[in-house]
Amino acid sequence: MKLAVVTGNPHKAREVAAYLEGVIEVEQVALDCPEFRHSDVGEIAKGKARFAFETLGRPLIVDDTAFCIEAWKGFPGPYAAYVLDTLGIPGILKLMEGVPNRNARFITAIGYADKEEIRVFRGTIEGRIVAPRGSGGFGYDPIFEVNGRTFAEVPLAEKSALSHRGKALAAFSAWVREKGT
Amino acid sequence: MKLAVVTGNPHKAREVAAYLEGVIEVEQVALDCPEFRHSDVGEIAKGKARFAFETLGRPLIVDDTAFCIEAWKGFPGPYAAYVLDTLGIPGILKLMEGVPNRNARFITAIGYADKEEIRVFRGTIEGRIVAPRGSGGFGYDPIFEVNGRTFAEVPLAEKSALSHRGKALAAFSAWVREKGT
Repeated sequence: MKLAVVTGNPHKAREVAAYLEGVIEVEQVALDCPEFRHSDVGEIAKGKARFAFETLGRPLIVDDTAFCIEAWKGFPGPYAAYVLDTLGIPGILKLMEGVPNRNARFITAIGYADKEEIRVFRGTIEGRIVAPRGSGGFGYDPIFEVNGRTFAEVPLAEKSALSHRGKALAAFSAWVREKGT
Repeated sequence: MKLAVVTGNPHKAREVAAYLEGVIEVEQVALDCPEFRHSDVGEIAKGKARFAFETLGRPLIVDDTAFCIEAWKGFPGPYAAYVLDTLGIPGILKLMEGVPNRNARFITAIGYADKEEIRVFRGTIEGRIVAPRGSGGFGYDPIFEVNGRTFAEVPLAEKSALSHRGKALAAFSAWVREKGT
């Protein structure tokens, strides 16, 4: 049976499918999961995975990503998606006006659930907030710079290799291969 | 049995106790509730009330409050507490620099649960965002102005009568009296 990638976000589904090609067959399933508010994305991913498995009854992964700005005590953190829908990039840039500390990080937690267990795999990447550049990626990618390029300037294959989601998927993928599913 | 007011916030507990004096005896109970992320505070309050009742097994109320800034598509909404801990008042004021539309609103949803039912009572108040004034209240009160005064300038008794939480408590209190508990 194909692994269900539970997300309403086709960009995320595409990144996951590209990453896991040759490892395990995947299929996007859009399911509206209630999400626990929690400061730790790992706990959020675990709660979502549990809920999704109770509903779908098949092996699946969910993904929860935080975007944390150091100068603003980790804001927007696990509410990255909500803040993108409301403040958007203009709001984030306004908050960063005149702020010398540009450090930010992405953290992705992938929650896996099947009938036997729930597991969480994490990945983190450090970068800095800059004026928007590039046309690829999605979300905060145009203002998140790593090694001189924004994530919107990095081709998907390369982004997958170095990004928070890529690292979390690498951990998941290694576990899948080891498990021999 | 006293009604449990489930909150870790002593300010909220005090407002509730003051409001319900003579109607029903209350007692603060600090319980860490996982909270569903949801754009509607009513749904969040319902989820928290259900969880708290499963844990405590006694009649209780929980409270969830959203703070919505019109010019920023309702941000911070149900994440008002998280945003206060991270951006704080300085961050909100920075977002509002040069923004002509100062409209904002508070929405409180009170969730009640006992062994028979779960109910939600709502209250809303419209105001505008101003430079901080006053030393009372808590949270966003110093920058939230209604009829020429900020909520931090209004005495608690008066605030209780007009505020979002007061209106939600009024609806709850009317229902309790009608029910004759």
